[in-house]
Amino acid sequence: MLDLCLLGTGGMMPLPNRWLTSLMLRCSGSNMLIDCGEGTQIAMKEKGWSPKPIDIICFTHFHADHISGLPGMLLSIGNAERTEPIHIIGPKGLRRVADGLRIVAPELPFEVIYHELEEPVQQLSFGPFVIDAFKVNHKVTCYGYRVSIRRLGKFDAARAQEQNIPIRYWNRLQHGETVTLDDGVIYTPDMVMGEARRGLSVTYCTDTRPTPAITEMAKDVDLFICEGMYGERDKLDNAKKNRHMMMYEAAEIGAAAKPREMWFTHYSPSEMRPDIYKDDIWKIHPVKFARDGWTKDLTFDDEDKD
Amino acid sequence: MLDLCLLGTGGMMPLPNRWLTSLMLRCSGSNMLIDCGEGTQIAMKEKGWSPKPIDIICFTHFHADHISGLPGMLLSIGNAERTEPIHIIGPKGLRRVADGLRIVAPELPFEVIYHELEEPVQQLSFGPFVIDAFKVNHKVTCYGYRVSIRRLGKFDAARAQEQNIPIRYWNRLQHGETVTLDDGVIYTPDMVMGEARRGLSVTYCTDTRPTPAITEMAKDVDLFICEGMYGERDKLDNAKKNRHMMMYEAAEIGAAAKPREMWFTHYSPSEMRPDIYKDDIWKIHPVKFARDGWTKDLTFDDEDKD
Repeated sequence: MLDLCLLGTGGMMPLPNRWLTSLMLRCSGSNMLIDCGEGTQIAMKEKGWSPKPIDIICFTHFHADHISGLPGMLLSIGNAERTEPIHIIGPKGLRRVADGLRIVAPELPFEVIYHELEEPVQQLSFGPFVIDAFKVNHKVTCYGYRVSIRRLGKFDAARAQEQNIPIRYWNRLQHGETVTLDDGVIYTPDMVMGEARRGLSVTYCTDTRPTPAITEMAKDVDLFICEGMYGERDKLDNAKKNRHMMMYEAAEIGAAAKPREMWFTHYSPSEMRPDIYKDDIWKIHPVKFARDGWTKDLTFDDEDKD
Repeated sequence: MLDLCLLGTGGMMPLPNRWLTSLMLRCSGSNMLIDCGEGTQIAMKEKGWSPKPIDIICFTHFHADHISGLPGMLLSIGNAERTEPIHIIGPKGLRRVADGLRIVAPELPFEVIYHELEEPVQQLSFGPFVIDAFKVNHKVTCYGYRVSIRRLGKFDAARAQEQNIPIRYWNRLQHGETVTLDDGVIYTPDMVMGEARRGLSVTYCTDTRPTPAITEMAKDVDLFICEGMYGERDKLDNAKKNRHMMMYEAAEIGAAAKPREMWFTHYSPSEMRPDIYKDDIWKIHPVKFARDGWTKDLTFDDEDKD
């Protein structure tokens, strides 16, 4: 199971009752966070989720509303007595920016390992999370992220029997292990497993003009969380100038990509009631107007939610 | 008149419903802020006070809970279209730390002027504020601040008449101006003004063990705001180790300094209900257990509030 919480939905600056946009995902005891603006650690505490199990922090880009909460978050993780390393992922320059901010958090009880993205599309894996970073189009280098949990195929006992694979090796093969016998015989998981089944995936994308990469990366995902900076259509010039996305533009991407569910986030501070644009937007695609703290549990297709 | 708001009362880390310790003061259209941890700009917006008129920001020290909100605050002040310079005051190393944090706020529409404190006691003046910075005793270099608004003496018409000072110069002298006539005669304000009257003063002090300088600087002030990190007396070893102040130690300073009013702030996250120690503390001094957003209007002694 993958469960997630959209800790905040604000863009540009934190407001009373609206935290900055940030997403936390949890799977198999490993947590990851995308973006960490000022106040994200408080939003997390408000939700009751611990910062300690955060293994990965991804940054879309280095504008303050997406990263200035980093030093406080790292200190709070340290106060929770974490000692395992944390992986931080972001565009080129990540180490320079993070080190600048960490001038007030120089000593931590865990190691910080930086991964600077260099390709337009780049895949990284940590624990259960397969992360596809894809470059989008903002005023500074900015990435969107698709986070996937893979699911193996079904174990095919008939195929294993046909190939005379001894039953004592089945369990190891089923869990992805290759078995090499003393006599040189090798059994690999693909000999006994059916085709990989649909896993789970979530795409998070903010601070960008529309680009084909977003549609591609949001295709068929379980949840697509996308910037909806402005609802009023006459703000288009403003959106173009500052390289942000209009709600209707995001909805058009949703209509093309057909995710199972789609949420807006990263509302402009001027949009105090984003859902007043619902009628306009739903003519294009039934996007949900997410609010701070929205959660979702995702389970594999034929798996019960407990 | 001087009015102030204790924007937050938390120490160490921001919590849901408890912002980090920070004080905002306003006088004659000029605002100043002492400390700016993560979330301070939200606390200010919650209070409905604009960040735009902030002319001065003082930092006690460079631990994250006192300074990590700086880049977001500066960006919000910039978004409010301020163009006048801002003075930032703090211990040695201020420019290095502020520049580190400003890696996410490099471009601002106003100038930032740094003032690094070098003496154990140092006085600076900006607009109506006379600021006495005094070194305290924390794990890193840390200062407390006494902020004063001066009040001139009363104009003494009898003395002016005795000295045959022409009436047409009285107004200028009364407003502190020296008048030099063509024939070389000089009239100075002290020729016509009585002794300076009691002004207004507020002392703010946090993150320190007790020191004589604090008692000295809190003497007779209108309001003394002081760290009350722990209430339980068995936390003394912890307080000593991390150079923080116990509530009873702060109360003892209050009893000696005799401020007109005293508030606790900078509570440990472990002190969820600081006022449970009231009976213990009031045996020493009637300190008020301040909470986020407490305000106070201070007026000159014989002046009506409005």
